[in-house]
Amino acid sequence: MASEKEIRRERFLNVFPKLVEELNASLLAYDMPKEARDWYAHSLNYNTPGGKLNRGLSVVDTYAILSNKTVEQLGQEEYEKVAILGWCIELLQAYFLVADDMMDKSITRRGQPCWYKVPEVGEIAINDAFMLEAAIYKLLKSHFRNEKYYIDITELFHEVTFQTELGQLMDLITAPEDKVDLSKFSLKKHSFIVTFKTAYYSFYLPVALAMYVAGITDEKDLKQARDVLIPLGEYFQIQDDYLDCFGTPEQIGKIGTDIQDNKCSWVINKALELASAEQRKTLDENYGKKDSVAEAKCKKIFNDLKIEQLYHEYEESIAKDLKAKISQVDESRGFKADVLTAFLNKVYKRSK
Amino acid sequence: MASEKEIRRERFLNVFPKLVEELNASLLAYDMPKEARDWYAHSLNYNTPGGKLNRGLSVVDTYAILSNKTVEQLGQEEYEKVAILGWCIELLQAYFLVADDMMDKSITRRGQPCWYKVPEVGEIAINDAFMLEAAIYKLLKSHFRNEKYYIDITELFHEVTFQTELGQLMDLITAPEDKVDLSKFSLKKHSFIVTFKTAYYSFYLPVALAMYVAGITDEKDLKQARDVLIPLGEYFQIQDDYLDCFGTPEQIGKIGTDIQDNKCSWVINKALELASAEQRKTLDENYGKKDSVAEAKCKKIFNDLKIEQLYHEYEESIAKDLKAKISQVDESRGFKADVLTAFLNKVYKRSK
Repeated sequence: MASEKEIRRERFLNVFPKLVEELNASLLAYDMPKEARDWYAHSLNYNTPGGKLNRGLSVVDTYAILSNKTVEQLGQEEYEKVAILGWCIELLQAYFLVADDMMDKSITRRGQPCWYKVPEVGEIAINDAFMLEAAIYKLLKSHFRNEKYYIDITELFHEVTFQTELGQLMDLITAPEDKVDLSKFSLKKHSFIVTFKTAYYSFYLPVALAMYVAGITDEKDLKQARDVLIPLGEYFQIQDDYLDCFGTPEQIGKIGTDIQDNKCSWVINKALELASAEQRKTLDENYGKKDSVAEAKCKKIFNDLKIEQLYHEYEESIAKDLKAKISQVDESRGFKADVLTAFLNKVYKRSK
Repeated sequence: MASEKEIRRERFLNVFPKLVEELNASLLAYDMPKEARDWYAHSLNYNTPGGKLNRGLSVVDTYAILSNKTVEQLGQEEYEKVAILGWCIELLQAYFLVADDMMDKSITRRGQPCWYKVPEVGEIAINDAFMLEAAIYKLLKSHFRNEKYYIDITELFHEVTFQTELGQLMDLITAPEDKVDLSKFSLKKHSFIVTFKTAYYSFYLPVALAMYVAGITDEKDLKQARDVLIPLGEYFQIQDDYLDCFGTPEQIGKIGTDIQDNKCSWVINKALELASAEQRKTLDENYGKKDSVAEAKCKKIFNDLKIEQLYHEYEESIAKDLKAKISQVDESRGFKADVLTAFLNKVYKRSK
């Protein structure tokens, strides 16, 4: 029997084909030849669903909490409205991932070849990334043009897109895969990169969108959301970095490669903060090498510096902080602390 | 002494550094490290000015005509407002060109290495292209947020961006450089590609933007503009295709490469329409080859088919049509036929 979670996922997934159909109808209205319509549909279907869909589902979940309903109680029209915004985040993510995979020269994504690795696609993937982004604004226009918050959510997408691109830029110039220079790394820079590259679009954006639809958009409330969700997003990414190094393949479903890939992860930054001159030298010489012996030398230093324990201390401390902040949320204008608790519960002590 | 044209160009160019400064101030407000701010400023300056600036200047010129003024009579505040929109088109173009050069594997652009060919840049150019696009919406927000037409120009940029991406997609899948298949070509497809890839953003967009600022935005007037500017943009591109093949290097400032590059140009499409079975076979065997003997065989067929003469007939016929349309323009709501005449005069019988 399907779990509640699976049923929710199915309902969300069922909206996507309608959006592909709508986008294709808009190409037909332009008289686009069939080969181009098929290409676009293929790109949309190949790149957008297929992930965990956490960001998209969060829009629906948040909206339900703000409306004092369960997701199941949302009528189909009301449901689709927020689900479309959820899909817009998934399209934004697809746009970033198609491009990131090219910039990182990745081979696979979500168990299939990266889009640019698909025969016949190649560099055309850049234009396809643009067209995934364009889909967001087509959908916002056709479904939200008459809402009073239309311009707000359009600007929100622009703003968050720019923030994510800034985070990506910082990441790319701080940690190029082929040129190790640990002097560029720092915990402060790590915090900046993960906040901009991940936290805004993955944590703040879904909640803010649901708030706009629910009509709870006082700047004070958006700030209450941001003040918890941005550090929570940072915590989520630090957890990801921790699991890449210390999680078992069974836990994380893959073998961590951050050390060999010269990633500017929380683990190396924490180690750099604490390393002796000798340990630092070893890290300089071994981090970012495609070599398992070098990798093991880095891991030994991480163990000597007790990074795993420091991570657990960080986790307890940030979770305590966030719980305290959530307990202080002012619900007088209709915002709900439960929205934030739901997110925290998904992240706290997650092991995959 | 500087000509009127040079003075106008200088005035327009003088606005750009202020925009770079503004964009950098917005990065500083995000606490972005200096290395990222410098990177963005470098990308903006490297990729945005440096071209002919026809599109950007057209916004200013059109606005002046609609306001019954010369460009010189525009006060600095009024001037900067429309010049910023002009720079937004130049940013849109920069966004496309950075990406197009990667997709086409081009080496130089405007007399300097393509951005992705600059040492240290490489694939990061994809994210830089995204950030050139993002600059448009930052500038629209900061300078036009309080205008009643803010949402209209935002949507116009979205729409035209999507149209250009559709044209680019059609071009990429119709004429891949490494796989010649002339059966994919047709004059109809050529018309579609140039309309979407060039005419909307280069011809319609500057005029429509100036119309919004001048307050002349009846859908009938936007349509009057479109009905001339889209075929004019197509004519411009056909002329470009013609000059690539038949223009002298002195005229066009470069050596044409469309034949060797397998470009879906008007010249080959016109030839395919008229070719005998034998001529078609020669074209199939020789078009799109990096080989000057093969190129000469194609050119011979173009000469045998009198493509040059057919081009001149097309040029006379389209110019006559456009003049007739322009003479019928309804100026009762404030739109001016002169806007369109100015564009036609720039294109008609241009030889470079």
